[in-house]
Amino acid sequence: MQRFAIGIEFCGTRYRGWQTQQAGVRSIQQTIETVLSKIADEPISLHGAGRTDAGVHATNMVAHFDTQAIRPERGWIMGANSQLPKDIAIQWIQAMDQDFHARFKAQARRYRYVVYHSPRRPALLYKQVTHAYYPLNVEKMIAAAKKFEGTHNFESFRAAACQSNQPVRHVKHCRLIQHGPFLILDIQADGFLHHMVRNIMGCLLEIGQECYDIAHIDEIFAAQDRKAAGITAPPDGLYFIHADYPAQFNLPHIPLGPQWLNMPD
Amino acid sequence: MQRFAIGIEFCGTRYRGWQTQQAGVRSIQQTIETVLSKIADEPISLHGAGRTDAGVHATNMVAHFDTQAIRPERGWIMGANSQLPKDIAIQWIQAMDQDFHARFKAQARRYRYVVYHSPRRPALLYKQVTHAYYPLNVEKMIAAAKKFEGTHNFESFRAAACQSNQPVRHVKHCRLIQHGPFLILDIQADGFLHHMVRNIMGCLLEIGQECYDIAHIDEIFAAQDRKAAGITAPPDGLYFIHADYPAQFNLPHIPLGPQWLNMPD
Repeated sequence: MQRFAIGIEFCGTRYRGWQTQQAGVRSIQQTIETVLSKIADEPISLHGAGRTDAGVHATNMVAHFDTQAIRPERGWIMGANSQLPKDIAIQWIQAMDQDFHARFKAQARRYRYVVYHSPRRPALLYKQVTHAYYPLNVEKMIAAAKKFEGTHNFESFRAAACQSNQPVRHVKHCRLIQHGPFLILDIQADGFLHHMVRNIMGCLLEIGQECYDIAHIDEIFAAQDRKAAGITAPPDGLYFIHADYPAQFNLPHIPLGPQWLNMPD
Repeated sequence: MQRFAIGIEFCGTRYRGWQTQQAGVRSIQQTIETVLSKIADEPISLHGAGRTDAGVHATNMVAHFDTQAIRPERGWIMGANSQLPKDIAIQWIQAMDQDFHARFKAQARRYRYVVYHSPRRPALLYKQVTHAYYPLNVEKMIAAAKKFEGTHNFESFRAAACQSNQPVRHVKHCRLIQHGPFLILDIQADGFLHHMVRNIMGCLLEIGQECYDIAHIDEIFAAQDRKAAGITAPPDGLYFIHADYPAQFNLPHIPLGPQWLNMPD
């Protein structure tokens, strides 16, 4: 039995998220499992580093699978990419020892949330950014993003449907970056609660619109109540960009995405 | 009767091009005409600065129309953008004198062709770039692009179906730019023949793959025969980005696109 790790880029627009329990509903995971199972000529189960909501994208989602099938690494990648839909592409594959686990060995996950800040509606990227047509106080948003760094109880920033048994997370960094017409939230944490990034972004967009002051974020945290925070930003601007593993696993490094942002790591 | 100029961004993937004579086939022009006619409550005819092929995009296609309807400029733009499909968006509108004509007053048109140069297949931008997975000699391509500048007979670089009555065009600039993982051809000319940019890009991709030397471009020009040149590059990477008019018309300037490239003008 050989374990393989793979890195996957996908556009989440046409899918109901990474994973779904519903029959007849298209998920990223199941789409890839179907193709890998054909190549392996046996049923393949994929384990992802994280789950993503419907409409959320990834540039380097890490997952692993086990197989009896013996194929060269190039055979897996070429075979899969020729059969996968155009909006899912394997970026790399690597044989791993059995002690690797895409979910349980991940020490941190990293997301980027991309806002297109322009009075003009985007026609080209409309499913890959969130459009903010209104004025934003970007300085305030940059300062506010810092408030989410460190260890916090994120109860106010998780969805009612969140299945995690505890709401405390350690956010390693949370930066808002201005990059041409784009505002990018870059956030890394040991783990994320359901809708956590989208709820943080919703809060930052409200601060940018001067709905309330930065200090109000402390009150939202203290309330430990989803109703205390604001809107959930749409999925379209959200990208899973990286999962961090111990160095011993020696996984390939590819540029952080989305590639079109062409932004330093 | 009032004349208006508009600037339009569109993703051409779902359309059979800017203009089509075929009934029952979706064109960009007809999609916009339908929406503007509803807003004006009278039939509106749109005249574009150029035509684009099926699958080709634009960031600032200029067009004009005449109407008896009296609406504030904001009313036109908000009304149209709320009714247009998500992949077409009016960027600006401006009232013009009757001597303006989007096609006949345009002194130059400018296109960008975007190649994603990476061994990894793109899942996110798959309809908005052309993927070159193979090695490319970029230095050679940069030098070769310069060969297209100036006044040439582009007979070898136009489609058999081209309707223009003469094949000579003046290319003001033709530059290949490396920008992160992207190679961008930026070309401006008084006018373009059918498939001209895609045929030039096809030639540059062949030069990048060392199929032949830069000097061979002279022979292709001299042949005045489409068969002397190589492949037609796919439409997905091509963007109409600008039309140039005499300064007296004072049209709005917006950043050259595609916006996601976030590249200086």
